[in-house]
Amino acid sequence: MAELILGVMISGRGSNLQALIDACASPDYPARIAIVIANIPGAGGLARAEAAGIPTATIAHRDFPTREGFESEISAALKGAGVELVCLAGFMRLLTPAFVETWRDRLINIHPSLLPAYKGLDSHARALADGVRFTGCTVHFVRPEMDVGPIVAQAAVPVLSGDDEDALAARVLAAEHRCYPLAVRLIAEGRVRISDERALIDRAATPDRALFNPAED
Amino acid sequence: MAELILGVMISGRGSNLQALIDACASPDYPARIAIVIANIPGAGGLARAEAAGIPTATIAHRDFPTREGFESEISAALKGAGVELVCLAGFMRLLTPAFVETWRDRLINIHPSLLPAYKGLDSHARALADGVRFTGCTVHFVRPEMDVGPIVAQAAVPVLSGDDEDALAARVLAAEHRCYPLAVRLIAEGRVRISDERALIDRAATPDRALFNPAED
Repeated sequence: MAELILGVMISGRGSNLQALIDACASPDYPARIAIVIANIPGAGGLARAEAAGIPTATIAHRDFPTREGFESEISAALKGAGVELVCLAGFMRLLTPAFVETWRDRLINIHPSLLPAYKGLDSHARALADGVRFTGCTVHFVRPEMDVGPIVAQAAVPVLSGDDEDALAARVLAAEHRCYPLAVRLIAEGRVRISDERALIDRAATPDRALFNPAED
Repeated sequence: MAELILGVMISGRGSNLQALIDACASPDYPARIAIVIANIPGAGGLARAEAAGIPTATIAHRDFPTREGFESEISAALKGAGVELVCLAGFMRLLTPAFVETWRDRLINIHPSLLPAYKGLDSHARALADGVRFTGCTVHFVRPEMDVGPIVAQAAVPVLSGDDEDALAARVLAAEHRCYPLAVRLIAEGRVRISDERALIDRAATPDRALFNPAED
């Protein structure tokens, strides 16, 4: 099977980008990263990409008078690199419906909660305030509404007594680093089909455990 | 340690009641059921209680002109049996704020979702419609608002490809049967403290795994 060509969009240190880079380094991983785009000059993740020999582009939203201009430049860079699937990995700009529609069903994001719970910012603080015993992370196709869209993969993560936001965030982040490469693999292997706004997984060759709780590997 | 005296309120077949009966049959379980109250004459759970030698009462809401009269009778029966903790186990009548306040912090419920997600009825249908990869169950202290209150224990349960509502309900129910006795044990052992409307667990002697994912025992 041909490799799926990925573009990764970041704003910060890029720890989920690193997880994807590491996954792609494995010979049997069915995807490769063709470009990493940052909207913040000097974002930490750019150095990770460069260290892995991956082309990068900095497209700073501040350089564009309109959101449309900014996003056209991003789309052009993605298309120029032959990108088939765009992975948001800590990309901190809201995207317009036009951009989202351009990349419909070819644009995924990772969010640090078990969506639809705790959409938006401060997921961990709100989970702690509610006293929930589980939270997690979600990889989903992007839709114009924030943190909504067909769910490709989730990982459940326990909230432990005495957790503060940092401790919980670190535990969930470790799950994110397993969940994101897993979700990309499923898509790359052609095992994800969107039907009625749900992502149905053909799991012929996937043990449920591996699929559903990468955090427990 | 003295045993905690439980009252269990049911409307139906009482499968969670059976899980509590079974737990209480273990010599080292720190609680016992003093009374089972049904609001539906002939509810299946009554036979389970009788088979276990537990006193029962049928207090049919239809026999009472007012909700207050119905609930006073229940409270009287619970108090008469010396109940210290009331466990709702498929009790399908909404309780008034007055009843809830009478038993505040001594009244718990089990709900088939990872609250605060999927409050109310049809939790499983809604989880399936959303395409989530995990749901679960929650034992929580009861507050006047439905399916709100400090969370004592939760279990996460995977949603599998091809699940229908019945298949998912059966898998979650199996987790409920582990989660409810666990939550009662924590309370009976004096390890649950409510602070700022969160139930904090003193887990000195409890491995996190046992506490957090009874579904995986």
